[in-house]
Amino acid sequence: MTTVGPASAPSTRRGRPGYDQQSVLAVAVTAFNRYGYEATSMGMLAEELGISKSAIYHHVPSKGDLLRLALDHALGGLESVLEDDRAVTGAADARLEFVLRGTIAVLIERLPFVTLLLRLRGNTEIEREALDRRRTFDREVAALVDAARQEGSIRRDIDPRTTTRFIFGTINSIVEWYRPGGPLTAQKLADDVILMVFEGLHCR
Amino acid sequence: MTTVGPASAPSTRRGRPGYDQQSVLAVAVTAFNRYGYEATSMGMLAEELGISKSAIYHHVPSKGDLLRLALDHALGGLESVLEDDRAVTGAADARLEFVLRGTIAVLIERLPFVTLLLRLRGNTEIEREALDRRRTFDREVAALVDAARQEGSIRRDIDPRTTTRFIFGTINSIVEWYRPGGPLTAQKLADDVILMVFEGLHCR
Repeated sequence: MTTVGPASAPSTRRGRPGYDQQSVLAVAVTAFNRYGYEATSMGMLAEELGISKSAIYHHVPSKGDLLRLALDHALGGLESVLEDDRAVTGAADARLEFVLRGTIAVLIERLPFVTLLLRLRGNTEIEREALDRRRTFDREVAALVDAARQEGSIRRDIDPRTTTRFIFGTINSIVEWYRPGGPLTAQKLADDVILMVFEGLHCR
Repeated sequence: MTTVGPASAPSTRRGRPGYDQQSVLAVAVTAFNRYGYEATSMGMLAEELGISKSAIYHHVPSKGDLLRLALDHALGGLESVLEDDRAVTGAADARLEFVLRGTIAVLIERLPFVTLLLRLRGNTEIEREALDRRRTFDREVAALVDAARQEGSIRRDIDPRTTTRFIFGTINSIVEWYRPGGPLTAQKLADDVILMVFEGLHCR
């Protein structure tokens, strides 16, 4: 189980000084997000890193391994949120809020990795395996939404599956526009998302 | 200006019987969404259509033209919402709701086209031009959000830009999961989105 935080990025060192698997991975994730996985070649990554194509295989056996490592980093972060005590005990409404805040934190900390996960099309076996893990995560959040509904804290006039999709849609779209380091802190962003999702935009 | 509705899809007929530019376009948009624009070749589209590679050029001069036509269909639909009287006159809150409902309607009617638009990375001149048009649309909606805020109908404790991004995030994410023809009608979906965005999920 990967723990939350950028420091825990996959870090098995195999390469020559100056480059390790982690730097190759960072460049690969950026390229996958920009050009798509299929359109990115190991040659393009080598060029971007300023190393030879054979040197890149010194760091990672294949393009598929880069994809697998990157997706595992995103999924491991998300899964660890659900394993926290605060996601497991207490009122469903509070647990749901904890999980949504935790998801937003992972999304911001591992922004390019989660972006890659959210854009998967399921064209390869590696992508399909990651999508399975993502669906398991989504199902556990959906169960929490259901529990908050049963508890009477969340409205019943919207279908629970639609509700879950709205929540994920709103949260996941953060990867499309949020840039860390700007005036909007991660904390204020999380507060704003929770406020909009639970209380809505209308003044009352 | 393209009008709203699937019947208004680009339809200049150039090809042989059985295939016209519109059928080529539909296949192209599906492939662009599935494999990415760069990774899709005219040869792949010809194979999918069961025609020769030279026959496909009879319908459309280049892959770039297919992209341009597809994006114009999505953008034309969105832009026509803003030109409606109901987007221009009345209270800002009601105008905003009209525009959000109209956006959802276009998104559902032209689902693969809007999906393509929302996934653009801006790698080519055609993509950058479309992104410019999309930004103009976004700016006009942002001005409406601002007006609703000034009017006192929308909360002021969230930054207006963040508010606009939440709204778009929530609405645009519909393309990722909504499938027309299922039990959730377009009308109920629009009602649910409006309810969540303006009133939130908490019972009160």
